[in-house]
Amino acid sequence: TDTEYGIKAQERLDFLTKPPGSLGVLEQIAVKLACIQQNPMPRLGKKTVLVMAGDHGVVEEGVSAFPQEVTPQMVLNFLGEGAAINVLAKQADAKVVVTDVGVASPIAEHPSLYQKNVRRGTRNMVKEAAMTMEEAIEAIEVGIEIVTKEIDKGATIVATGEMGIGNTTPSSAILACFSGDELERITGRGTGVNDAGLHKKQQAIRTAIEINQPDVNNPLDVLRKVGGLEIAALTGVILGAAAKKVPVVIDGFISTAAALVAYKLKPETKDYIIASHISQEPGHKVMLDMIGLQPMLYLDMRLGEGTGAVLAFHMIEAATRIINEMATFAEAGVSEGK
Amino acid sequence: TDTEYGIKAQERLDFLTKPPGSLGVLEQIAVKLACIQQNPMPRLGKKTVLVMAGDHGVVEEGVSAFPQEVTPQMVLNFLGEGAAINVLAKQADAKVVVTDVGVASPIAEHPSLYQKNVRRGTRNMVKEAAMTMEEAIEAIEVGIEIVTKEIDKGATIVATGEMGIGNTTPSSAILACFSGDELERITGRGTGVNDAGLHKKQQAIRTAIEINQPDVNNPLDVLRKVGGLEIAALTGVILGAAAKKVPVVIDGFISTAAALVAYKLKPETKDYIIASHISQEPGHKVMLDMIGLQPMLYLDMRLGEGTGAVLAFHMIEAATRIINEMATFAEAGVSEGK
Repeated sequence: TDTEYGIKAQERLDFLTKPPGSLGVLEQIAVKLACIQQNPMPRLGKKTVLVMAGDHGVVEEGVSAFPQEVTPQMVLNFLGEGAAINVLAKQADAKVVVTDVGVASPIAEHPSLYQKNVRRGTRNMVKEAAMTMEEAIEAIEVGIEIVTKEIDKGATIVATGEMGIGNTTPSSAILACFSGDELERITGRGTGVNDAGLHKKQQAIRTAIEINQPDVNNPLDVLRKVGGLEIAALTGVILGAAAKKVPVVIDGFISTAAALVAYKLKPETKDYIIASHISQEPGHKVMLDMIGLQPMLYLDMRLGEGTGAVLAFHMIEAATRIINEMATFAEAGVSEGK
Repeated sequence: TDTEYGIKAQERLDFLTKPPGSLGVLEQIAVKLACIQQNPMPRLGKKTVLVMAGDHGVVEEGVSAFPQEVTPQMVLNFLGEGAAINVLAKQADAKVVVTDVGVASPIAEHPSLYQKNVRRGTRNMVKEAAMTMEEAIEAIEVGIEIVTKEIDKGATIVATGEMGIGNTTPSSAILACFSGDELERITGRGTGVNDAGLHKKQQAIRTAIEINQPDVNNPLDVLRKVGGLEIAALTGVILGAAAKKVPVVIDGFISTAAALVAYKLKPETKDYIIASHISQEPGHKVMLDMIGLQPMLYLDMRLGEGTGAVLAFHMIEAATRIINEMATFAEAGVSEGK
């Protein structure tokens, strides 16, 4: 990104009829977009949310409140436009693009579905590595391919979303590898597991790390051993968006795990990432702090799909409108402060 | 409000294709609106932000970074649609209504301006009570009158906004009376005062409370002695909205001071109030906790005008869309959790 345009954007923001810096994070976002777009008056343009779906062998350990069949059922719900992400994307005038990168059971062809299944669900990481290195890289490449395609079709800002029963478990496992935190501190209830399920989840993560011994200095090794196919694909989406100089809004815990891997692989991707909400998962804040990102929305959500990211589109649009549409002190005849 | 409709709304939310409660605050808002509107499928309808403008005698103590002339200048900027609130209200499809309830200098007639000046600025509270009881009540009545008028014109949800150079000083003073907190903890930099200004501000509040001895068991006595005309008018807006059974979204520190007075006068108004953002003012969180409200947006803003409240309209609209538009488990053929 180009900081020269960010400086020009901040200069303009300081001419607008408000105390300098008083719009806080909205101003920071306007500056970040100016750097990314190399334009001191950045625009939002066409919004697309990329939902990656995949299943997890580890669900056989009883780590989720929902059965695995819900993953393809929810993919069909996305395609039928009945899910939360569809409703919220419609409100934000954003397009929803769904990709099967690792769902366990086949899904029928649909014009809005990218069929890119790398493997019908990961292996159970409690027993062996979730993916081979080839599978993990292929899933990352799916993410890069899809985001590149959507950008070529006109997307100027993208958001990450996911669907995969059990996928807070690999996300907590990824975080545990990179942060070394106590599992009790960074493992939450996902979509709503009870105490017994939470204990099984922590035990599964502990065993998976012991069995697989991920190399914490090799993000791809962590990703393939205790990650997931949709998480790998989202890592690809984030890397691909940054490579195309397009901002990417990340959703909750799982998307942020993918962002953490992307950040570990290529720290400069951070300049293209905008954090959206802080979820109920206790590890989410830890991850955002590790990347150095600040969430905007505190809504106690724990749904995924990209719902928090799409809600944040409204704040990002507000930032671009402010810098483009507000009057300056001179235009409005308002006295400046001291 | 009627909790029966809230129970029905939560039942519907639990049938939708998402884990129960996973949309967090959005679900709470949908339930709150259901109670207010006596409708298990609440709608948002027509949004209006009511901006109350007033000046403060205490500015002669050097408590603000901006000169008093900025209050009427910014009122003209609102009427010319060049201010942040205009830009953000346009994005949210909300109407902006501006009222002069206490600006120090006269403002020319304008079709979008309510001329309801009670007094040309408050007295300097460091020397005497900011308002007589009659003036404070008249300003509250202005708020009730304007919000009632706008509701009669079709507004189904309203937001509070304000403009008044120096008005974080009376807001901190109101909070100090009710909370008894140390002034250092609840006095901030407003729109951006420096260290010397912050010290003057704390000293002014300390002296104002000593001189006026507000009766903390009488919210109107606190309001008139250390409050402001636009704050009183916003108290009226909140009381008036609740009386008409219309939800009212409160903005930042000054609006929340007005809400605190309304809550102290009539605790059941809380059921009609929705908190929007948490500002940079250190006392804001203290006030919201006292009322028992939770902010949604963490944007480090400190502008006022209603900007945070109008941004929150997007979240509230999301809540109503979720309950009206999402598919149920049965409709989408999705398995429920255990």
